[in-house]
Amino acid sequence: MKVDGQHTRTIWVEPDGWSVGVIDQTLLPHRFATLRLASLDDAAHAIRSMQVRGAPLIGAAAAYGLCLALRADASDAGLEGASAILSATRPTAINLQWALDQMAAAVRNQPREARVAAAYRRAAEICDEDVAINQAIGRNGLALIEAIAAGKGNDPVNVLTHCNAGWLATVDWGTATAPIYMAHDAGIPIHVWVDETRPRNQGASLTAWELGHHGVKHTVIADNTGGHLMQHGMVDMAIVGTDRVTAQGDVCNKIGTYLKALAAKDNGVPFYVALPSPTIDFTVSDGVAEIPIEQRGGEEQSTMTGRTADGRIETVQVVPDGSPVANYGFDVTPARLVTGLITERGVLKATREALSAAFPERAGDRS
Amino acid sequence: MKVDGQHTRTIWVEPDGWSVGVIDQTLLPHRFATLRLASLDDAAHAIRSMQVRGAPLIGAAAAYGLCLALRADASDAGLEGASAILSATRPTAINLQWALDQMAAAVRNQPREARVAAAYRRAAEICDEDVAINQAIGRNGLALIEAIAAGKGNDPVNVLTHCNAGWLATVDWGTATAPIYMAHDAGIPIHVWVDETRPRNQGASLTAWELGHHGVKHTVIADNTGGHLMQHGMVDMAIVGTDRVTAQGDVCNKIGTYLKALAAKDNGVPFYVALPSPTIDFTVSDGVAEIPIEQRGGEEQSTMTGRTADGRIETVQVVPDGSPVANYGFDVTPARLVTGLITERGVLKATREALSAAFPERAGDRS
Repeated sequence: MKVDGQHTRTIWVEPDGWSVGVIDQTLLPHRFATLRLASLDDAAHAIRSMQVRGAPLIGAAAAYGLCLALRADASDAGLEGASAILSATRPTAINLQWALDQMAAAVRNQPREARVAAAYRRAAEICDEDVAINQAIGRNGLALIEAIAAGKGNDPVNVLTHCNAGWLATVDWGTATAPIYMAHDAGIPIHVWVDETRPRNQGASLTAWELGHHGVKHTVIADNTGGHLMQHGMVDMAIVGTDRVTAQGDVCNKIGTYLKALAAKDNGVPFYVALPSPTIDFTVSDGVAEIPIEQRGGEEQSTMTGRTADGRIETVQVVPDGSPVANYGFDVTPARLVTGLITERGVLKATREALSAAFPERAGDRS
Repeated sequence: MKVDGQHTRTIWVEPDGWSVGVIDQTLLPHRFATLRLASLDDAAHAIRSMQVRGAPLIGAAAAYGLCLALRADASDAGLEGASAILSATRPTAINLQWALDQMAAAVRNQPREARVAAAYRRAAEICDEDVAINQAIGRNGLALIEAIAAGKGNDPVNVLTHCNAGWLATVDWGTATAPIYMAHDAGIPIHVWVDETRPRNQGASLTAWELGHHGVKHTVIADNTGGHLMQHGMVDMAIVGTDRVTAQGDVCNKIGTYLKALAAKDNGVPFYVALPSPTIDFTVSDGVAEIPIEQRGGEEQSTMTGRTADGRIETVQVVPDGSPVANYGFDVTPARLVTGLITERGVLKATREALSAAFPERAGDRS
């Protein structure tokens, strides 16, 4: 999407034809800067230090990391060694391993001298495929926004979102944000309530930044606020992303999503979840019972990082000395609270039947 | 309650017999310091600058402010002038005006030479009355905790609370916290989930501080977390405070309360609201429709204040430049989500019938 008026992806090949550019997301929202990755080490460091983050973008960065590695050593040993290093950068990221497997398959049977070119081709395809899936999600979600807009005259469609399922987490468009950007680009008046998303503040620091730079009207709110807004007719729909959807349509997403879904249900506000279909895990059924919820480091809850009035980046402690904190990363929203799942194959009911019918080739997956 | 092992109220008369001590709450949670108020100006400044805050404590501080004023000028003009100054410190605080009216009634018909002593007597009574009401709330809520504890063996009773309805907001005990402190002092194992309470962080900065200093086990969590904890049986009950309860039992409280009440309902967790009966407003019925919700300054949402690793207090911006913010201070939890109202006259159903029956002398109030 746009940054300072210029269309930008989160990852690209530089004009030299081989080095890789990314946005240093650790500096957002206070500074926009790009990085040039010129080696396997650069790419591994970018993933490990979360200069690039978001499952699809991590996959793309790993793919290009392998390209850079093969430039230095295109042997089988080089391929395997680089894959192992990249795979270990964020061990729990499923897209990361998927991308590395795709790259290995594209390269392995090529003669050594053809491997680098084959790798760059496949990495570019992985990026373009991500963009295409997000565009399809965007088109399917756009129809929902258009239907609401039709009843609102010139009043903006108010969308609430949580965390960052935006273009910064993907190669472009994002998942939850794709329908929003498409509506905005189509001239539909739209306004986004952006949940701050404590404790890591991805809403305030990433979603607000990307919406603002693309020119989408938005307002940052405390995570406590969505229910009040819905009670007063100030939210027309919610669209969030997800880390995992179960076979029966339960949605695992950033902690707090469940609370917003409850408020949406209580107020008759449609609650949508946007996702690329690989996010569906047909091996899991009951999300609340079966999905283990990661507990993250307490410093994310006990501190906040931001910019002082005179421009310094500081981290401040916001709990009393000696007060324990807990930091659960995700929660599960039961399918009964989900109005629809916006996928690249259409907007589906959050039911086993609908998911199986839309993805028959995967519905038999077993754990 | 206790601070560093010593029983402490939020306001007291110093050993000199006339000056007034308070805790400087603007320094919490990073520093505990007390202030000596020796004049009307000191008292007015303490209220205005929120060194003292919380409706009952503001009332008590205004009462003692009037004592200090009368020491300098016990004339009718002095009384009226001081009342006007104190009344203007926080114009929307109902307790403030109530306390000033009480003080005027106690002093007005006294001869001038008796006014100072009468004022100190009434101010002390106002403080003791607040403590007595909170203790009654505490005893009534304690019975609820005891009933849960009886089924848990040696496992702690897990209570979730939101914002600060603690002793720091009152003279002592607090409202939502009174049952918790009584249970703790009675040796019942208890653990409190403390919502951070963005955007002003009163949970993380005040509730966590006071629970920790009294020795009550607690854990600070992001406001997003309560639903997940309830889904997994990690919350036995919720107790929150309130700013206003309507005649039909709707509860206006800090923004986000409604979301926690929804999660409690969805998971069968009892959701209690603790309040002194003056908080009931019999002139309002439908809280969602009738109570206007204050919008506060955006800087509370766009910045966070805390302590750096090397001990400096810094305020940092946590949203992108140019991103608008909204800051709604309160929301309304419909009575249907409230298990019970813990008052000084018992635990009441959140219904018009129950409230009228418990407070027949006030049920006819008209706006």
